[in-house]
Amino acid sequence: MAKYEEVASALVRYINDNDLSADDKLPSIQEMVDYYQVSKNTVLSALNDLEKQGLIYQVRGSGVYVRGNQRKGYINLLNLGGFNSTLSQFKVDSKILSLSLIAPPEEAVENLKIADPSKTKVYYVRRIRYIEGRPFCIEESYFDKDIIPYLSEEIASNSIFDYITEDLEIPIGYGDHFLRVGKLKSEHAEHLNLAKGDPCLKTESIFHLNNGKPFDYSKVIYHFEETQFFIQGASTQYRY
Amino acid sequence: MAKYEEVASALVRYINDNDLSADDKLPSIQEMVDYYQVSKNTVLSALNDLEKQGLIYQVRGSGVYVRGNQRKGYINLLNLGGFNSTLSQFKVDSKILSLSLIAPPEEAVENLKIADPSKTKVYYVRRIRYIEGRPFCIEESYFDKDIIPYLSEEIASNSIFDYITEDLEIPIGYGDHFLRVGKLKSEHAEHLNLAKGDPCLKTESIFHLNNGKPFDYSKVIYHFEETQFFIQGASTQYRY
Repeated sequence: MAKYEEVASALVRYINDNDLSADDKLPSIQEMVDYYQVSKNTVLSALNDLEKQGLIYQVRGSGVYVRGNQRKGYINLLNLGGFNSTLSQFKVDSKILSLSLIAPPEEAVENLKIADPSKTKVYYVRRIRYIEGRPFCIEESYFDKDIIPYLSEEIASNSIFDYITEDLEIPIGYGDHFLRVGKLKSEHAEHLNLAKGDPCLKTESIFHLNNGKPFDYSKVIYHFEETQFFIQGASTQYRY
Repeated sequence: MAKYEEVASALVRYINDNDLSADDKLPSIQEMVDYYQVSKNTVLSALNDLEKQGLIYQVRGSGVYVRGNQRKGYINLLNLGGFNSTLSQFKVDSKILSLSLIAPPEEAVENLKIADPSKTKVYYVRRIRYIEGRPFCIEESYFDKDIIPYLSEEIASNSIFDYITEDLEIPIGYGDHFLRVGKLKSEHAEHLNLAKGDPCLKTESIFHLNNGKPFDYSKVIYHFEETQFFIQGASTQYRY
């Protein structure tokens, strides 16, 4: 980790520890230089980095402020901590509909970029997720067994993402998400206590390791009345 | 712009100029060092930056590769160039339903953080947007006149975002987005050639300048059959 990344991490801890929220002001740059005992350039690089990630914003001549337009109860689609993290104010449960180790079907081969489908198996997990006891989505996931060597009903009844990052200690790199709106089929409607034909959001997500390898392909169907979503944009200087 | 950011920008130009796409390999780090005449550290910082923004990924011992899981026809919600940019393969048109300079209503005051609503006016624009001649969304936007001093029907019939960034030369910092799924009211259904009660995605977006000041609050209702969305996650080391 570069020096400026250490300072950036320390500043995030500072924000957490002091329970700062949107538009709260951070210490001055000179105070950061003194406190972290680094150069002004290192502090500026750290702030630059946090700004690009959408965590702070800087106002020339005024100071550095915490961003955070998150509204309560919104699912942060870019949060890599899973529902238990993005909905941490609420009780999130799961009911497992099925869990098996199988040869990867077409959609798993394609989205997980499995090189040799005759050699790689995938864990297939289908769950209903509950928020405060009410169903809010149906989730279908494929995990590449070459990367996630073990899954069980016990693990899947809690947070699979916590298991991956904390127990397996595999850092999650990033997720790409595809969204569409549609009408519920009767089977899905039944699981969500809705009517056939009711609206739903359908997402496909592909989660990657830092080295670009996808390890989790998930399809989720959301209850339209129980869910709302938040996407925090970061300031991007570069564009294809 | 720091040295490493210049190299990052140059690499993005290289990717564009050579029309590289997903999983194409970039030159080696040593080649970048030689070509850009910078230190290895500067190249590594540039790659680090591009990786965090989701534009490349690095495979240890192998090289640097272009990311890009964008699927054709998907609207990139994090693209700050507006629909004309994210749907650049298609013809995007607008029909203006109304355009006026008004005292800011409650929702504009709140989301644009207008300090004194008696002094600040907002441009209110309501448009139907068309893709290849078919309606794909209804858009309602408020622009803070203190930041966007002028709007006209002629400008609003093209890309307002192009006008802001290219003519007014105001750089857009970032957008925050809130999403919900619902059922269409009859007025909206009529504009979109759909039936009352059909599903729709409703978004609220707040676009900010780099200094954190919001200047555009937009509410969009999307045609569920004409639109699909892409969100490219960046790898984030830091979390609140």
